[in-house]
Amino acid sequence: MQRRFDRKSFDRDAFETVLRRRFFLAPAFEIYGGVAGLFDYGPPGCAMKNHLIQLWRDHFVVEEGMLEIDGPTLTPDPVLRASGHVDRFQDYMVRDLDTGACYRADHLLRETLENRIAAMDRKRTDVQEDRLRSAMETCLQRIDEMNQEQIAAAYQQFDIRAPESDAPLSAPYPFNLMFQTQIGPTGTIPAYLRPETAQGIFVNFRRLLDYNNGRMPFACAQIGLSFRNEISPRAGILRVREFAQAEIEHFVHPDRKDHPKFNLIADLELILLPRKEQHAARSREQMTTVLLRAAEAVRQGIVDNETLAYFIARTQQYAQMIGILPNHMRFRQHLESEMAHYARDCWDLEVETSYGWVECVGLADRACYDLQAHSAASKVDLVAYEKFDEPRDETFLQITPLKRVIGTKFRGETPQVLEAIEKLGETERAQLQQQLTDQDQVQLGPYVITREMVTIERVNRKIHGRSYCPSVIEPSFGIGRLLYCVLEHAFYNRTGGDELRTVLALKPAIAPVKSVVLPLSKNEVFEPVIQAVLHALAKCRLTVRLDESNVSIGRRYARADEIGVPFCVTIDFDSLVDHSVTLRERDSMEQVRGSVGDVVRVLVELVTGERSWTELVSTDPSLKPFTGQQSTSAVEDGTVCEKPTQSA
Amino acid sequence: MQRRFDRKSFDRDAFETVLRRRFFLAPAFEIYGGVAGLFDYGPPGCAMKNHLIQLWRDHFVVEEGMLEIDGPTLTPDPVLRASGHVDRFQDYMVRDLDTGACYRADHLLRETLENRIAAMDRKRTDVQEDRLRSAMETCLQRIDEMNQEQIAAAYQQFDIRAPESDAPLSAPYPFNLMFQTQIGPTGTIPAYLRPETAQGIFVNFRRLLDYNNGRMPFACAQIGLSFRNEISPRAGILRVREFAQAEIEHFVHPDRKDHPKFNLIADLELILLPRKEQHAARSREQMTTVLLRAAEAVRQGIVDNETLAYFIARTQQYAQMIGILPNHMRFRQHLESEMAHYARDCWDLEVETSYGWVECVGLADRACYDLQAHSAASKVDLVAYEKFDEPRDETFLQITPLKRVIGTKFRGETPQVLEAIEKLGETERAQLQQQLTDQDQVQLGPYVITREMVTIERVNRKIHGRSYCPSVIEPSFGIGRLLYCVLEHAFYNRTGGDELRTVLALKPAIAPVKSVVLPLSKNEVFEPVIQAVLHALAKCRLTVRLDESNVSIGRRYARADEIGVPFCVTIDFDSLVDHSVTLRERDSMEQVRGSVGDVVRVLVELVTGERSWTELVSTDPSLKPFTGQQSTSAVEDGTVCEKPTQSA
Repeated sequence: MQRRFDRKSFDRDAFETVLRRRFFLAPAFEIYGGVAGLFDYGPPGCAMKNHLIQLWRDHFVVEEGMLEIDGPTLTPDPVLRASGHVDRFQDYMVRDLDTGACYRADHLLRETLENRIAAMDRKRTDVQEDRLRSAMETCLQRIDEMNQEQIAAAYQQFDIRAPESDAPLSAPYPFNLMFQTQIGPTGTIPAYLRPETAQGIFVNFRRLLDYNNGRMPFACAQIGLSFRNEISPRAGILRVREFAQAEIEHFVHPDRKDHPKFNLIADLELILLPRKEQHAARSREQMTTVLLRAAEAVRQGIVDNETLAYFIARTQQYAQMIGILPNHMRFRQHLESEMAHYARDCWDLEVETSYGWVECVGLADRACYDLQAHSAASKVDLVAYEKFDEPRDETFLQITPLKRVIGTKFRGETPQVLEAIEKLGETERAQLQQQLTDQDQVQLGPYVITREMVTIERVNRKIHGRSYCPSVIEPSFGIGRLLYCVLEHAFYNRTGGDELRTVLALKPAIAPVKSVVLPLSKNEVFEPVIQAVLHALAKCRLTVRLDESNVSIGRRYARADEIGVPFCVTIDFDSLVDHSVTLRERDSMEQVRGSVGDVVRVLVELVTGERSWTELVSTDPSLKPFTGQQSTSAVEDGTVCEKPTQSA
Repeated sequence: MQRRFDRKSFDRDAFETVLRRRFFLAPAFEIYGGVAGLFDYGPPGCAMKNHLIQLWRDHFVVEEGMLEIDGPTLTPDPVLRASGHVDRFQDYMVRDLDTGACYRADHLLRETLENRIAAMDRKRTDVQEDRLRSAMETCLQRIDEMNQEQIAAAYQQFDIRAPESDAPLSAPYPFNLMFQTQIGPTGTIPAYLRPETAQGIFVNFRRLLDYNNGRMPFACAQIGLSFRNEISPRAGILRVREFAQAEIEHFVHPDRKDHPKFNLIADLELILLPRKEQHAARSREQMTTVLLRAAEAVRQGIVDNETLAYFIARTQQYAQMIGILPNHMRFRQHLESEMAHYARDCWDLEVETSYGWVECVGLADRACYDLQAHSAASKVDLVAYEKFDEPRDETFLQITPLKRVIGTKFRGETPQVLEAIEKLGETERAQLQQQLTDQDQVQLGPYVITREMVTIERVNRKIHGRSYCPSVIEPSFGIGRLLYCVLEHAFYNRTGGDELRTVLALKPAIAPVKSVVLPLSKNEVFEPVIQAVLHALAKCRLTVRLDESNVSIGRRYARADEIGVPFCVTIDFDSLVDHSVTLRERDSMEQVRGSVGDVVRVLVELVTGERSWTELVSTDPSLKPFTGQQSTSAVEDGTVCEKPTQSA
């Protein structure tokens, strides 16, 4: 049975209240009034984030045998100039000409038009208004692809004004999203906080290839902070100014993008939203995905190549592993107009949330763009070498300088002349031959070269290999966005008691606290069993908490459910007699009973995912069903579980 | 047998060559010329860093049940103004008045004086020079404690000039070490990159106390990046501009700094360098440490309190666990002149390296300074509440306003008058009583209060508890420095062959690669056994590498030794017959032989530290000593191991 997520009925207020109250997340520097777009992860949020990163590292770096590096976030100007970020990493902004308030131009345009259309929906309109409405709808569909001029034209056409003051707005102008600073005391090294971790991998390409003993293809990952100075951050932690990224750069021969492990995922059904289906649909929200085996997606040319499809498949596995609901995720292909000119193919993992579909992972075939850009700017060749299976014959124009003639003419400058001839490329050699044929002499820098100074002949040679610039396939993960989507998908209300109780159906592997230990009441007699349980769990390195506060078991279960604790261990008076305890599963609220040793053993198996709860209940001979303590709680009695799950 | 480290004979050139060549570490953005103080961790360095952090989290956060949070590095100005960093987080700088080059004033002073003294040592000197020399030596001893005026005076006294140009220098002036930037498009939110992670914990104190259900004491950790815009970074990765920090803020009642788990470490011998021993010594390098049981250090008042001593002990355990050599570390107590006025007691973990003694961890009792500073600046009370064991009697002056009289006089302003009286503190109430006795009336803001408006009496009441500002005990770890020290302590040369071979004696738990699998030669027949070994190791989530390059086994062992691989698994022709392989230990170069299953099983035990190599060789019945392949390598034959170890 699959859990479902309903965006329309999602109670975001209740959800956000839980996140703040239980300190998953809170606005940073709140006692000083806070700063938009900066958040603190409190203990449960921080633990979940660490789990997401650890699972990511296991799933991608360790299992795929990738390299991993860790470089600085401070990045000097030339690096980000070469990558294009200094010139092009920008959003368009409009400024309220009265108050000076700034707005992101596309967001304000979208909101204003949506509001106006909504207002029209509520009253009858005439023909002229119908025409305006249709113009606005067309504009809305195109916003994401508009350039500066087009946005400016739309602002004029629809007479967009400042939302707070109704004042006129400046024309849209670009605002660079990088945080700028200066390195060193003299202020002569302008630098930025990196907008992505990827560049730190590209600039290390040579060292990485060396480390990999020159073997291609290979992948390198980096997990770390990136920064974007958003114009007006909103949407909680979906749009923030500082965030953890996990990026992979998979370097591959541009003509051979097959993947050695493709067969392992060839039959996996990918949840795809290809270009064609997007063109056919009326709006982004009403698009239907197609389920396609990875091998079929590549065969039909829908996904450009095996390596890209391999990473889409592995990303889909990861997303499900951490608790994204498959029915509420999709890989959306970029439209041609969305892609950079050099990109071959791009897909975004989008997850459905109460804010709509949210991009959490970008997967792009960026061809040779990045390495070529850094090669050109740094004057350092970022290339790999391929040895041909068979040596190839190649003819080329050989120009041999006659040193005696040149020496007589140029004397002390002879070495420079020889070097200038030596350095000529294939095209230049052909030009030189042509000019010497036509005019008997040719200007080479400051030197005049004549026919008698060189011999020119076309010769054959064996070529054993060549250098080439690798292509890059880049999966790029936003850890905070994934974390947020996991939390929304996990959140549900449990009805049946006298008050609303919320639950987080987090997978055991990412739950911040794996188990809460609860004595039936605050009583010293329980102490030895409590210590025995805590000691046994600590030895297994499980994060557990003890809750011996003086409230009912039911209320304490609810408190644990609220932060997604998957299993509670309860100690009652029978525990004193036979050293048995109960184990309660969060979503089914089923309980089993067994000895401390057996319960701790299965708890480890449940948390590591070796066994599921259903399997355990039906098969483990050392545990027996238990219904004893439920009467202490109204909610636990005859409860209706609104959204049953099989997450454990 | 304990490994030893010899600073004098340490071959730093060879060491640094290995670190770069094997990409433990390299200057960042090197293809663009690099930026001083910024480094990349390559794959082995990055893996080691992740291991150090994971062990730290297990040892401190999980084992101690600490909270952990994760907040932004971007920090708005008011937070760092309150903490004192905007005004006081600075070094003094001098500028070459000709070239504009900047130098850190204390470093340049120290270098210049040391060079001049060294020059004197090489020639005979007269009495006047002896006097100068003695003045320079006195100055050298005081440099770390000097303020701006004293440094300026020393520059004058010794006529210090720019080292490159010999030009005159500016007077020393302060340079703030924080990187500055702006948040948001309007540039109205000045911000800094945090200089430490601690402030992010202090500003969250209320949420953290809530999360802990109001219980004191508790500790919160944060692991993350911090930034310092060093004036002229040197000394490799010991002085960098961006670094990973792991900090703990342990909040505790100011009068009760005992620690519940103190008895667990009470008998541990701490390696201490108390103030007294420092005063007695002639120079920092010639100080002798004392070994003192933790309980004894507290009893004698050498370490201020149990909690501070507890963290010193836990830090010592951690340092040894990661491979810092105990004979080359010490906890140095700050002299009174080094400590901030509010600090109670401070100790630094210093580690001996080729650069001298390096501070890697700071442990400080900061009293209530930080919480009080943020309370005052944010106007938000950062306090805990203590309930008294017994309610206490307290007498206080009660002022009861007579509403009828006040109402008649002040009419519509009556509520404000009542509130003004209500808000009076204890001291103000006593003053009011005194003034009413002396003068019959008193000015209270804009209101004149007369005797007949209030009754004043001294009354008793029961006090059940009170709010207080907790003290903070702060252990602060520099992860990069620890990593560097571990690498220096692990590095040694192995002699005996025809070429120099270097080894990193890294503990298995932090070694970047746990095992290398080596077939005797490149031959397809080995493939099935190779795959069996790799598959078995992958199932245990061990990071392993396959080295089937076409060089001798000895050379491949040397390559593995160089990056600290603790164990090699070798496959030879006998493996094809009986499925047995050999396991070689890095430092002893001993080998044992057993089945693939047994070798993988013991490898896991060795890496997790469940068993040591010595124990294994002497006791495991499934493995037998092996001496077969050593003849393939000159170095492995009759080798002398320069620094034998028992690190495994």
